[in-house]
Amino acid sequence: MSIRIGISGYGNLARGVEAAVAKAKDMELVAVFTRRDPASVQVKTPGVPVVSVSDLENWKDKIDVLVLGGGSATDLPEQTPEAAKYFNVVDSFDTHAKVPSHFANVDTAAKASGKVGIISVGWDPGMFSLLRMVSDAVLPEGKHYTFWGKGVSQGHSDAIRRIPGVKDARQYTVPVEETVEEVRSGAGKDYTARQMHTRLCYVVAEEGADKAAIEKAIKEMPNYFADYDTTVNFISEEELKRDHAGLPHGGFVLRSGSTGWNNENQHIIEYRLKLDSNPEFTGSVLTAYARAAYRLNQEGVSGCKTVFDIAPAYLSDKSGEELRSHLL
Amino acid sequence: MSIRIGISGYGNLARGVEAAVAKAKDMELVAVFTRRDPASVQVKTPGVPVVSVSDLENWKDKIDVLVLGGGSATDLPEQTPEAAKYFNVVDSFDTHAKVPSHFANVDTAAKASGKVGIISVGWDPGMFSLLRMVSDAVLPEGKHYTFWGKGVSQGHSDAIRRIPGVKDARQYTVPVEETVEEVRSGAGKDYTARQMHTRLCYVVAEEGADKAAIEKAIKEMPNYFADYDTTVNFISEEELKRDHAGLPHGGFVLRSGSTGWNNENQHIIEYRLKLDSNPEFTGSVLTAYARAAYRLNQEGVSGCKTVFDIAPAYLSDKSGEELRSHLL
Repeated sequence: MSIRIGISGYGNLARGVEAAVAKAKDMELVAVFTRRDPASVQVKTPGVPVVSVSDLENWKDKIDVLVLGGGSATDLPEQTPEAAKYFNVVDSFDTHAKVPSHFANVDTAAKASGKVGIISVGWDPGMFSLLRMVSDAVLPEGKHYTFWGKGVSQGHSDAIRRIPGVKDARQYTVPVEETVEEVRSGAGKDYTARQMHTRLCYVVAEEGADKAAIEKAIKEMPNYFADYDTTVNFISEEELKRDHAGLPHGGFVLRSGSTGWNNENQHIIEYRLKLDSNPEFTGSVLTAYARAAYRLNQEGVSGCKTVFDIAPAYLSDKSGEELRSHLL
Repeated sequence: MSIRIGISGYGNLARGVEAAVAKAKDMELVAVFTRRDPASVQVKTPGVPVVSVSDLENWKDKIDVLVLGGGSATDLPEQTPEAAKYFNVVDSFDTHAKVPSHFANVDTAAKASGKVGIISVGWDPGMFSLLRMVSDAVLPEGKHYTFWGKGVSQGHSDAIRRIPGVKDARQYTVPVEETVEEVRSGAGKDYTARQMHTRLCYVVAEEGADKAAIEKAIKEMPNYFADYDTTVNFISEEELKRDHAGLPHGGFVLRSGSTGWNNENQHIIEYRLKLDSNPEFTGSVLTAYARAAYRLNQEGVSGCKTVFDIAPAYLSDKSGEELRSHLL
């Protein structure tokens, strides 16, 4: 019997989950939930109904795992605990400072319903977290470094779009190659934000807008840009659509650590992702963890989990024997 | 209370485990077991007794986890199931074809004693297996590639030493950089052994030995060298000791996979290790899994496990809250 999947939302991430579920031989997509008028949403999987999110409870016995495609700012803090009353759930919650409260809320709801909720799944948090954690456990004396990019940051692109006179924008986060190389060499130093990443912006200005003022507003924006070397390029709307339509991303997690009685031996662990499509890769990770949520729950487990709490075998549709024969 | 660790054997790997246990704040080394005369073995950790392996059973209640430092050819197939009668155990069994029988033997012994046995731990098998498996689950449509090196292969070095006229030898396995780059570019091709690795040999010949015959014997040796482009350099014993004393190793696991309704988006996952000391890194991985074996057993788990079956959090001495705060 297939694992019955529901998806909440139908933005980029939700569509990435839909594409991944379509490839999973042990899963079937059962419904997509939306806050919009369901008649206005057309999904790609043939025969799958689009349902109002207010109907969630009625699908209690028809869905095994609900994958949440919403955003961390306002959607997930409410939606994930609510959905955990009825289903096993997986989300991509990434507001780091609010993980403890989100974890507690999902844990309470999931324990009450006897379901599993896996939060903060994707590549960062998610795969990068897993690599940071395992590398920290294996090489306890060391430092870890996370570099993002080259890739599109939605949050930074949105921040630019809010500046008066800006029609559209795309921001790429770019790792500083010299710093990456220095980390790879085992230098073990600390770096400032500016030493690790640069920010590259492509901006479409409104007709007659003050470009110098826009550039200044971007470069001086606290948190987002002020601490980085930022390059602003003004381009036409056509150029933005032609050259910057994709959502590529990726990055590196590096751990530099030492072993030996006098720390005489140095080791570098590097994990690197190069992704053509951030939402499709993230959706693929969510889908693998949806399988884990279902299986753990079948074994009687309930409550909130993160990637740290899931044995890797639960992510795969292969048996223990197959995994040991082909991948060990 | 500390986790009480025993180590069986005192070769390179066992000494790597000893150094890692010395750094682990939640562990203490309790005894080292040897097949040699215990009086002839001097361990580095102050106050730790060296005991005959025939006394293993008498340490039943004094050791929580026994880490096995033996070899896969003859030691581990006997030692791991035997030790699992008394202790939680961790080994680095790496004879791939014999994993099913070794798994079954350890599972039977560990279930009977109510202990946990974790087999095939290290970096390959071990960390590389984990990365292959998780990447396969996340990107089911794709291929994985494993490159080893540049690093010293003990098995290949030993094979050269068995050739008449060879006094000593060191063999480095070297990935073919062009192939690594092609895999990284997402080409998704298949490669022969020769296309993936070259073999670089440093050989000390006996006085008056026929060097041409030695070179021919190496290059034509089936399985070990015949399928590879092999370079043989004759050097002096002094040069071997001076320039090739370390045991560096490392390598790459790459997965190239696609997502999207028409596989239109390509993704590359790369995991890379660069290790100054193969035995110390492997020993560090074994030590982290020793912690996991102990904790799982404390929760009532028994039987044989591999890295696929262990939730990452069990490897760390940090609490769930700490992990979520600092590494998620």
